[in-house]
Amino acid sequence: MGGIRTAKPELDFVFHPQAIAIAGVSAKEQGFGGGGFVQSLQEIGFPGPIFLIHPTARAIRGLKCYRSLREVPDDVDYVISSVPARAVPQLVEDCIAKGVRVLHLFTAGFTETGDEERAALERAIVERAKEAGIRVIGPNCMGLYVPASRLAMMPGQPPEPGDVGMVSQSGMNAGEFVRYGLPRGLRFSKVVSFGNGSDLKAADFLEYFLEDDETRIVAAYLEGIQDGPRLARAIRALGARKPLILLKGGRTEAGSRAAHSHTASLAGSLAVFDGLCKQAGAVRVDSMEELVDSAVAFRFARRLPGPRVAVVGAGGGASVLAADDLAAAGLEVPPLLPETQAALAKVTAEAGTSIRNPIDTTSLWETEGFEATLRICAEAPNIDVILYHTGFGMGPMSRFGDARKRAAQQAEVLAQVQERFGKPVVVAIRPSLNTEGFEQANEFQELCWRGGLATFPTITRAAQALGRLLRWQRQHES
Amino acid sequence: MGGIRTAKPELDFVFHPQAIAIAGVSAKEQGFGGGGFVQSLQEIGFPGPIFLIHPTARAIRGLKCYRSLREVPDDVDYVISSVPARAVPQLVEDCIAKGVRVLHLFTAGFTETGDEERAALERAIVERAKEAGIRVIGPNCMGLYVPASRLAMMPGQPPEPGDVGMVSQSGMNAGEFVRYGLPRGLRFSKVVSFGNGSDLKAADFLEYFLEDDETRIVAAYLEGIQDGPRLARAIRALGARKPLILLKGGRTEAGSRAAHSHTASLAGSLAVFDGLCKQAGAVRVDSMEELVDSAVAFRFARRLPGPRVAVVGAGGGASVLAADDLAAAGLEVPPLLPETQAALAKVTAEAGTSIRNPIDTTSLWETEGFEATLRICAEAPNIDVILYHTGFGMGPMSRFGDARKRAAQQAEVLAQVQERFGKPVVVAIRPSLNTEGFEQANEFQELCWRGGLATFPTITRAAQALGRLLRWQRQHES
Repeated sequence: MGGIRTAKPELDFVFHPQAIAIAGVSAKEQGFGGGGFVQSLQEIGFPGPIFLIHPTARAIRGLKCYRSLREVPDDVDYVISSVPARAVPQLVEDCIAKGVRVLHLFTAGFTETGDEERAALERAIVERAKEAGIRVIGPNCMGLYVPASRLAMMPGQPPEPGDVGMVSQSGMNAGEFVRYGLPRGLRFSKVVSFGNGSDLKAADFLEYFLEDDETRIVAAYLEGIQDGPRLARAIRALGARKPLILLKGGRTEAGSRAAHSHTASLAGSLAVFDGLCKQAGAVRVDSMEELVDSAVAFRFARRLPGPRVAVVGAGGGASVLAADDLAAAGLEVPPLLPETQAALAKVTAEAGTSIRNPIDTTSLWETEGFEATLRICAEAPNIDVILYHTGFGMGPMSRFGDARKRAAQQAEVLAQVQERFGKPVVVAIRPSLNTEGFEQANEFQELCWRGGLATFPTITRAAQALGRLLRWQRQHES
Repeated sequence: MGGIRTAKPELDFVFHPQAIAIAGVSAKEQGFGGGGFVQSLQEIGFPGPIFLIHPTARAIRGLKCYRSLREVPDDVDYVISSVPARAVPQLVEDCIAKGVRVLHLFTAGFTETGDEERAALERAIVERAKEAGIRVIGPNCMGLYVPASRLAMMPGQPPEPGDVGMVSQSGMNAGEFVRYGLPRGLRFSKVVSFGNGSDLKAADFLEYFLEDDETRIVAAYLEGIQDGPRLARAIRALGARKPLILLKGGRTEAGSRAAHSHTASLAGSLAVFDGLCKQAGAVRVDSMEELVDSAVAFRFARRLPGPRVAVVGAGGGASVLAADDLAAAGLEVPPLLPETQAALAKVTAEAGTSIRNPIDTTSLWETEGFEATLRICAEAPNIDVILYHTGFGMGPMSRFGDARKRAAQQAEVLAQVQERFGKPVVVAIRPSLNTEGFEQANEFQELCWRGGLATFPTITRAAQALGRLLRWQRQHES
């Protein structure tokens, strides 16, 4: 997956701006739009200068304002536009005059309105920018989150980089992917919200990710099929080289109508898209939850040595449903061998059926019993993966001893077992219903992913994500 | 659904104990088992006497202990057993001597171990109890939660009664159903965990729910098919009269093996069970999440006047996925009529596409705009249901004004709109990732259900639950 290369991908400059100007910042400090971008860039610590363009204000958030882009005394290579649509043509002229290389149009109100005049304006703007050598992101989008460049599209996006790339036609969905991925340990190389995709489109960014060594896993939210043949080529090439997970908005007629309203997208046939994903060895998912879950599985479980799962955790009913969920997802929950059961019997008070697999014993409640149970499961010759399920702020375990300390010890044991035996350990943490449990669960989740473990909010979602990972492996390793 | 009756269902006495004895309480105050039942009964405020049976202790948790059941000076009609399996035969003799009517065997270690001797012991115990006129719940189960009788199986179960009945072969799954249902407004008539079902079985409890006027909606978690023909009759009869939602553990071979280990259940054929559910007009679901979601839909959305949904909430990408989810679940997201769009255009800054449906406008951020937008959607002649989606502790809304106050106003408006227009309003509240958002979301959720609204943690789950409700209606109203 990517060797040593010296040449940078063609679009690399898009992700590494040196100086940013933001046009259309409200004098109010916070909020959505221009002000939000200022806040986000300051928060993540963009190292280059940020110039604000404002007709009257002297300074906003401590940054000097200029009446027009042309008045900025330094070079500017990247411009974020939050001005009204009708003011964009002038801004493009100013960008050309300043030698700007990338124009991010947060500005909306173009083709997606369904108004032909506004669609024509969008085409004219992008044509003018392109002929002057300026690449356009958008319009109608949130732009870029590139931790390594200290570039953020929303507040709360951390500077710590990672190996997951994401391209999204929706700013909100890009934001949700990041937001829900962060507490589960996903970190990002480049996240792109490209909206109407009038110039730079999904195909451009997927082609970029193909060559980008910082990106090991790619997730995408696409509403429309733009430049179909090129997009298909990009998906096929990328799907062959890196894990590629695709969420298609507009997979129904109603969704397709909504997609057209949202980003002027023509959704295309789901059957064609689905066929393309299959052929490309890409993983197609149906929800934001599945998109995040799959990225977590690729990032942390990485590769399953086989389909056989040991299920470990408290609760007979949960054990039964876990076995069902795993089997329904294409995995196996084999009975443990007699010698494994004999070893487990030595470390637990329960005899018989609770150590066959699923394993549901009170030995899990004590530190030594927990370690021994997990180790024996990992040593079992007919087990490839361990699924541990737990919850916080509920059940008898919450009433015994120090739940917080026990959770920290458990996370350590789980990480050590994965490391030592080379068998993925995945953790399902049931949603908590009270604040204490919520905070304990968050703490445990962080300890787990920092230890290299895949975490999921339900057993069902863990099983489905493992199933998708396994199917992906079978397709790519055959 | 149940008229005025004077006769009580035959098993009514099981749910209305007058005096309880608990055998096998640990001298330690808290925990699982006997001590847990004492704690639960004291917490919920069981009004009758609770007698503890303990060989040596004088009192536990303020309750006087007796060396044996026979030494209890008063009448006892209900006994909870937490003694070891080998001590149960003596306890049964004591129950017979005391004239006990119901024996709840929390005690495990019988047929579910796979040991033939232990299975024989279970059969002998139950036979002896039955011939003496004692009904047995269990063994290997958590027993009953009956708020109106102030009877709880776990700590944290409130005394407020409701109209949802639940029967579960797993104590944990009964507990999870209650736990996850409570913050979404579910309240319960009777919840039963019956474990191995050696005497009283699913069929008994479903027959009871058929006649029980306090129970309007029934949820069930079943692992095995015991007394098949009678169970099938009970499901058919109940399914015809009340909403019946069934989660089948052991729907795969792996799950079936786990079910056998858990409650000695023979899972039977899923195809047969599925066919039975269809024929009975019962709703079959595949996870605990779906079981709770469906109960919430029946309890709060109650009846959809039709399949046409207006989607309201922030975010273009979320809107597209919402439309997809609803359409995939069998609902419709029709474009609003020109007159409805004209009315919406008057209350929002956005023109064009964000008011077609889904509706995604900044007017939702202000109290008046929110009220007007919801009202106009509810007035729309081609809309039957409104789905509002939101989140807390994230996004631009969390940065404007007082999020808590706005949420309270929104909940009030949503409830009023449902009430006034007779169209169900359902609310999807995205999971929060920080404590502040978590607490705000919980507060908003409670305001919503107290106002009579169905709440769901994701748009996908809301859509799927509405789809199941709609299919149920179509089957029962045709």
